[in-house]
Amino acid sequence: MNLVLLFEDDFIAGTSRVCLKGRRLRHVLTVHRAVAGDSLCVGLAGGAIGTGVITRLDSTVLEMEILLDRTPPPPLPATLLLALPRPKVVKRVLLIAATLGVKRIILLNAFRVEKSFWQSPALEQESIAGQLIIGLEQSRDTLLPEILLRPRFKPFVEDELPALIRGTLPLVAHPGSPRPCPRSVNRPVTVAVGPEGGFIPYEMEMLAACGFTAVNLGERILRVETAVPFLLAKLF
Amino acid sequence: MNLVLLFEDDFIAGTSRVCLKGRRLRHVLTVHRAVAGDSLCVGLAGGAIGTGVITRLDSTVLEMEILLDRTPPPPLPATLLLALPRPKVVKRVLLIAATLGVKRIILLNAFRVEKSFWQSPALEQESIAGQLIIGLEQSRDTLLPEILLRPRFKPFVEDELPALIRGTLPLVAHPGSPRPCPRSVNRPVTVAVGPEGGFIPYEMEMLAACGFTAVNLGERILRVETAVPFLLAKLF
Repeated sequence: MNLVLLFEDDFIAGTSRVCLKGRRLRHVLTVHRAVAGDSLCVGLAGGAIGTGVITRLDSTVLEMEILLDRTPPPPLPATLLLALPRPKVVKRVLLIAATLGVKRIILLNAFRVEKSFWQSPALEQESIAGQLIIGLEQSRDTLLPEILLRPRFKPFVEDELPALIRGTLPLVAHPGSPRPCPRSVNRPVTVAVGPEGGFIPYEMEMLAACGFTAVNLGERILRVETAVPFLLAKLF
Repeated sequence: MNLVLLFEDDFIAGTSRVCLKGRRLRHVLTVHRAVAGDSLCVGLAGGAIGTGVITRLDSTVLEMEILLDRTPPPPLPATLLLALPRPKVVKRVLLIAATLGVKRIILLNAFRVEKSFWQSPALEQESIAGQLIIGLEQSRDTLLPEILLRPRFKPFVEDELPALIRGTLPLVAHPGSPRPCPRSVNRPVTVAVGPEGGFIPYEMEMLAACGFTAVNLGERILRVETAVPFLLAKLF
């Protein structure tokens, strides 16, 4: 936790003081091992970052006086379109994408996505938010990404995706494609990553019809949690 | 498992047939859901890759007829020098680095590495080999990386590191460094990544004296398991 992410209702009404319990309190006690008087990096969800000076810290509460005076790192102009990974991997990928500054992530069905994945507790709003917050805290960012769940491939690609990719370079990472992933594109990108085993030909055709270019990440087939940072490092 | 990694003693002596039990048998049964007559991608540890045609598959044994006729993907000319991460992360990083084709990984002590990490079962030979094998199987590679454990920072950096980095570009990823990580360097690289909280100034000075240049990965501080694929994608 390189930043403690704060929400409006952490503030004591009418003051610049926050009062934290639960996960953040425990983390500051046991990992930061902070004491009263110490300063921590803090940020307001959706807003500025700054400093929190600890005014009280014990096993029940963390109180800080907050000054928000800096902007968080700029977002990455990337939308991630991911075939829904298995639950353990969804959690990691959301965290990684949030850390890297992605502000829109679409979790999409595909032929090779196991149906049961859509019932996973990892997709509950609270679980998703939890991973995104940890990701933002890692990279001192405050702006929560938007997460879209799209359990039907065809209607999403036909009806919704054309508007979502407007103004972006639409790419799909697909092992075996002849074209290597471009580098340093310096423009907004929508990048799709298939499920284990890849998108099936029908899905690749649908994406191509929508304007996506298939690109490879080299000879090696990567897991989605490796492919995401790898892709974003190439593209930006 | 995009490739079933084979070892010399999997072969029935004097034949081109292998006989597998345990993890590989279970994976082929439950994930690949293969049947006799199917072909799988296989590779011999340290050697060629090719095809295994299943001649027998039941709950007790997987037998294949093996033809090895292709070369694995080329290795990445990168040595990773990692401050020893926490055990759960070590496992992931070894897997990721093996997947990406790194052939030498040095796990090093540093001031901010918790001493207890060195006692972890994750550093036992069998555990390390297990992660590397899964990583190779992911990217259809066969050549196991060499892993060096170096629990003393100073003697390693003074006595051993100069010879290890010879002929490579030595970089240390360090948040806040003014110089961005170079792209597409097209030459062998040794890249060091610090512990959570970073290398301390003394350690950075020791690395600088050894010839390392500090580079940043952008404004965002990444976890080591994200930093590794991110760095390697930038560099190669």
